[in-house]
Amino acid sequence: MDWEKIEETLDRLMAQKRHGQLRGALMMINPVDIAEYMKKLDAENLLLLFRILPKDASAEVFSYMDSDQRETLVESIGDKEITALINDMFLDDAVDFLEELPANAVKRVLQHTDPKTRAIINQFLHYPENSAGSLMTIEYCEFTPEMNVQDALQTIKETGVDKETVYTLYLVDKQRKLMGTVPLHKALVVPEETPLIKLVDPGVIAVNTLDDQEVVADTVRKYHLLSIPVVDGEGRMVGIITSDDIMDVIEEENTEDFEKMSGLAPAEEPYFKTSLFKLAGNRLPWLMLLMFTSIISGAIIARFESVLAVNILLSASIPMLMDSGGNCGQQASTLMIRGIALGEVRFRDLPKVLWTEVRVGLMVGLVMSAATFGRLILINHASLAISAVIAVSLYATVVIAKSIGCVLPLLAQRIKLDPALAASPLITTLVDASSLFIFFTIASKYIL
Amino acid sequence: MDWEKIEETLDRLMAQKRHGQLRGALMMINPVDIAEYMKKLDAENLLLLFRILPKDASAEVFSYMDSDQRETLVESIGDKEITALINDMFLDDAVDFLEELPANAVKRVLQHTDPKTRAIINQFLHYPENSAGSLMTIEYCEFTPEMNVQDALQTIKETGVDKETVYTLYLVDKQRKLMGTVPLHKALVVPEETPLIKLVDPGVIAVNTLDDQEVVADTVRKYHLLSIPVVDGEGRMVGIITSDDIMDVIEEENTEDFEKMSGLAPAEEPYFKTSLFKLAGNRLPWLMLLMFTSIISGAIIARFESVLAVNILLSASIPMLMDSGGNCGQQASTLMIRGIALGEVRFRDLPKVLWTEVRVGLMVGLVMSAATFGRLILINHASLAISAVIAVSLYATVVIAKSIGCVLPLLAQRIKLDPALAASPLITTLVDASSLFIFFTIASKYIL
Repeated sequence: MDWEKIEETLDRLMAQKRHGQLRGALMMINPVDIAEYMKKLDAENLLLLFRILPKDASAEVFSYMDSDQRETLVESIGDKEITALINDMFLDDAVDFLEELPANAVKRVLQHTDPKTRAIINQFLHYPENSAGSLMTIEYCEFTPEMNVQDALQTIKETGVDKETVYTLYLVDKQRKLMGTVPLHKALVVPEETPLIKLVDPGVIAVNTLDDQEVVADTVRKYHLLSIPVVDGEGRMVGIITSDDIMDVIEEENTEDFEKMSGLAPAEEPYFKTSLFKLAGNRLPWLMLLMFTSIISGAIIARFESVLAVNILLSASIPMLMDSGGNCGQQASTLMIRGIALGEVRFRDLPKVLWTEVRVGLMVGLVMSAATFGRLILINHASLAISAVIAVSLYATVVIAKSIGCVLPLLAQRIKLDPALAASPLITTLVDASSLFIFFTIASKYIL
Repeated sequence: MDWEKIEETLDRLMAQKRHGQLRGALMMINPVDIAEYMKKLDAENLLLLFRILPKDASAEVFSYMDSDQRETLVESIGDKEITALINDMFLDDAVDFLEELPANAVKRVLQHTDPKTRAIINQFLHYPENSAGSLMTIEYCEFTPEMNVQDALQTIKETGVDKETVYTLYLVDKQRKLMGTVPLHKALVVPEETPLIKLVDPGVIAVNTLDDQEVVADTVRKYHLLSIPVVDGEGRMVGIITSDDIMDVIEEENTEDFEKMSGLAPAEEPYFKTSLFKLAGNRLPWLMLLMFTSIISGAIIARFESVLAVNILLSASIPMLMDSGGNCGQQASTLMIRGIALGEVRFRDLPKVLWTEVRVGLMVGLVMSAATFGRLILINHASLAISAVIAVSLYATVVIAKSIGCVLPLLAQRIKLDPALAASPLITTLVDASSLFIFFTIASKYIL
């Protein structure tokens, strides 16, 4: 059944107030789709649908809902009901939700939870944003090395329903230190009396609570993990992060890189959820900075005023020089930023990268300036001297742009700045200034 | 133990030719790390280490190795050994590997596999690049709806060792049509006599063999899946794609967007694996195109030559106008491209987006042109007329740049082009031309 038909059916059942049938229909739909459908409901219908949901689905649906709608719901249901929801949600989803609420609402809601849960949630709320600690959940399967497969399966049968994943078994010693992991599929294909310790994967792969989410995502992707254990400073196991959350992290980190590369302050919310002032505020700082740095390029033009008066083709070439330089620089910096993000390029590769980019610049620049030289002579009937000055300046611009474009992101990473920050707008300014300077220096020497 | 120590130990054992100990050491290391270590070995040591590897690990290590090294290995080991490797690998990894080999090598290697495997591999090699079919594997657990949990666990015990995942059970009917999926964790917490059909997840989520990998990644991410079933045109189940492969797809798609946004032809290989000519060739088409379109901006400057002669501040403002316009346009287009990629913005949102961007442009532009006006009057001691002309041109440029920047990606998507292709370099050219045109039109009217 396609989505439009599902939507239509739900709309009809809502309108006809056939709540029994509606409940039945909802049982047939993925919780993600239920949350999607709820997006278009008003406050009243939202509450109605939420109350109709099968009891065991409501916490899951709630964790997939938009923050706006959660707010709407929270305003209409009582604190007790919220507390029940929080108890039913996985801890990481509950913490995500609580982080959205105003501080006094969090306090009020947590009053009703039991002291142990409250203590854990409070601890989780204090992990730095985007740290492994802030992403993790505590619903994982912990086992001791003496247990065998049968014990493990029995434990899963008894407690597995409340776990976010049972597909990796974590072995901890008496000090709660992580000793190793057993993928469940290994346990399912051996005799039941096999001790878990015999099935442990080689090498313990874990992250620290304070590690950045980027490190977590890179590790999960590198080792093809379904979930990764999180340990504290003493190596004690404190939680896990599952791969579905990692996919969101990967997209988040990529969005951040896209934004930084375009001189945007990272947005916290999707486009349509961000206020106009915030949208403008996120863009203004870089725009102002780059507007003022471009005055340097202007000053270079002003200084060489006399050159421009010689031939109009010189002024007319300024956009071509600036744009080509900007594009060349951006191409090189994008390749570096991606290479760094994917772990393919490191700072120590700088000489190799620079040498590569210079040669690419020499090749690309040759074609571009030959074409420009030809155009100037054949179409614009320019003099040999002017055509040569413009073509040579373009050549130098391309090579310099490629060099600046590859060096800046690597340097930024070296001094622990985000490479994406060093990207296109800043590079454009630098490349503009140097290409204009070269252009006018050559022009004033050979034409005036 | 940290990576450097591991590396050192392996180096020492290799040098001392202690092959027994080396084999033992390798058993303690994750296959991903073994493949990583092998990167630095020469052909001889590579072959040696590969031969020493525990038998059951070699196929997995092989599937994590670089394409260069696989080639080196394939050259030194016999066809029979390669065939054995292929039989041990999961089908999707085997197909990936075979796609790298020259066609006659594939034929030679496949000669030794059994006819059934050969037929399947040949079929897989014919799926279009980046389609679900080309990503999927056939090692999944298929069950019939009559089976109960006990039957399922027994089947897993017998055949699970060869499956890429056993964590989702796929129920198919007699026509091999996919009826639904059962997450293994649900089966592990209920009595063994429970029929599988009672545990089926609501809604069947699957992709078609011909669906693009982007669709696959979006679906897996949306529904938080560990694996997704792939069906053919008739709804028959033919394979699965696991979430670890999806993570690589997400990064690949993001890299492609980054490249397109910077006017680069998508690269097939990592930076250092790409030849110099290919690196240059990937960049040249857009650079040439944009170099020639920037002649339009040059023509506008040439046409208004007389205006530039009035005051040098006018020429000196050209870089600021061009750069600010380019930056504003790129900010807007980046937000659109990400919004489209993440499913947050659609073509039908165009009026809403345009209205938002115009207002953001009005706000941002006001601050920028006020600052510029102030600078011209106070620092450059420019006349009121000239300062006003430049400030107003900047204002108009910002608003137009924001509009073009948001409209182009949405239009591109509408006509089924990649939104990222419509991005920054093309937008820069358009914005440049329009901002210069506005600037000179206003200037010639009010200053001359």
